[in-house]
Amino acid sequence: MEVETLIGSSKLLKYWPSFLMGLVLFFSIKYLMKNHKRKSHQKYTLDNEEDIEVEETDDLQPALEEKPHVSFVAGLNLNPNGAERFYKLVQGRRSIRSFSSHPKPDLSIIEDCIRAAGTAPSGAHTEPWTFCVVEDPEVKKTIREIVEQEELMNYSQRMHPQWVTDLRPLQTNHIKEYLTLAPYLILIFKQTYGLTSDGRRKRHYYNEISTSIAGGILLCALQAAGLASLVTTPLNCGPALRTLLQRPVNEKLLILLAVGYPSEDCKVPDLQRKQLSDIMVKY
Amino acid sequence: MEVETLIGSSKLLKYWPSFLMGLVLFFSIKYLMKNHKRKSHQKYTLDNEEDIEVEETDDLQPALEEKPHVSFVAGLNLNPNGAERFYKLVQGRRSIRSFSSHPKPDLSIIEDCIRAAGTAPSGAHTEPWTFCVVEDPEVKKTIREIVEQEELMNYSQRMHPQWVTDLRPLQTNHIKEYLTLAPYLILIFKQTYGLTSDGRRKRHYYNEISTSIAGGILLCALQAAGLASLVTTPLNCGPALRTLLQRPVNEKLLILLAVGYPSEDCKVPDLQRKQLSDIMVKY
Repeated sequence: MEVETLIGSSKLLKYWPSFLMGLVLFFSIKYLMKNHKRKSHQKYTLDNEEDIEVEETDDLQPALEEKPHVSFVAGLNLNPNGAERFYKLVQGRRSIRSFSSHPKPDLSIIEDCIRAAGTAPSGAHTEPWTFCVVEDPEVKKTIREIVEQEELMNYSQRMHPQWVTDLRPLQTNHIKEYLTLAPYLILIFKQTYGLTSDGRRKRHYYNEISTSIAGGILLCALQAAGLASLVTTPLNCGPALRTLLQRPVNEKLLILLAVGYPSEDCKVPDLQRKQLSDIMVKY
Repeated sequence: MEVETLIGSSKLLKYWPSFLMGLVLFFSIKYLMKNHKRKSHQKYTLDNEEDIEVEETDDLQPALEEKPHVSFVAGLNLNPNGAERFYKLVQGRRSIRSFSSHPKPDLSIIEDCIRAAGTAPSGAHTEPWTFCVVEDPEVKKTIREIVEQEELMNYSQRMHPQWVTDLRPLQTNHIKEYLTLAPYLILIFKQTYGLTSDGRRKRHYYNEISTSIAGGILLCALQAAGLASLVTTPLNCGPALRTLLQRPVNEKLLILLAVGYPSEDCKVPDLQRKQLSDIMVKY
């Protein structure tokens, strides 16, 4: 049989309009289904927050116990002039990259700082955070290897050239000596969902904002303790660091902090902060 | 002319296979283009962060001035026992919903608290935040109207039933009396991008995490000043509140804080915080 005959007799060629019609219908329906699915999801999803698959159940129970409310008792403050005194405390904080490995701050100081961070408010009081405190030199070394390997690719390939340019005044590159020099690394993980006592998934509302707020409180606590720190958000390192520290899959790395005393010759970028009038508007 | 003849002679009917083929080609190309665009964008985009359109230019300049670094000078601390004392300060903070409209804290206290918040670290020192302080009763009233209208829809339609159930122990609903009772509202906007002096768009790296950290510092400052507060993230209210406060389109509402002294009969949920061993892991 000749090739032309074969092609001519092919059912595909003979009925191609019908095949086409089928294809068009298939993709139209697929497109409509996708949009519908997206819309019905959106209804219950927070801005910027991943939707997690939570088992649906008719028997809805709150994650917290329902108890009568109690009288509010005001806590301590720094008055008189509490706000001014607090501003003077935190305005001396700077991100440093040059740490001294000695003296090593006592672990109890770090613990008190993390206790302070744990007082942060959170969506529906879910407290969606885990603070991993690393002092073992071997673990710090592996963290540094993971971060430097990714950062080399970040600087050379993943980051926009404008980003690399914007970092130039800070004199940073992919070499992260502070990860092995600082006596403590604190890796703050956000818990994207939780687990109930019977193993069901529990929603963690606004977990990224809540955990970042806890990070802000931690920075103040470290400053109060006379410790210096560096906040970093190592791009693309989350999964490898999560695996290294054996954290469960519901936890995602948000912030990696280096903590300790500054080295004697520690230098910092010559930066100014914005004026109050640049960041505050009155109504 | 009869209808059948009209339909029979229609060019659409006669050449419909060609029309179909055209349609299939059109949507295939569109689909491929879309995927290609998404991939090439992803390369320079942060997790969880919206990509902004920044004009491309060959002449890359850093947003900050390039200056020699300077010696680090340690700031104040709260030692001895700084970490412990700071923990005792912040552990007394509670989110309250029942404010007293008098006495009204002096605006200078709020200003010092915002100065403190402005010391937060930020991606490439972009300081991507704006604090809108509202004391005008009319503006507060309009804010309350906007929030209550959206919250009614949130509670009844937008929020997942589990979410509404999880909020039950906190006894919240769509009525937000604190928005008019609290002497101050502070609306914290994240700036998703900035503008250079010559009007070009400037990237604001990690603007949500940075602004949330500033929010955490603000909470500590308010506590230090003896003021109570409530952190809220009003779902779907951002655009209307941005318009009301005449903030530019690069600013997005992140947190709405009510600030003031608690009412005499102020009650709070009977909550416990997690233990240190539940939030900290050592390595």
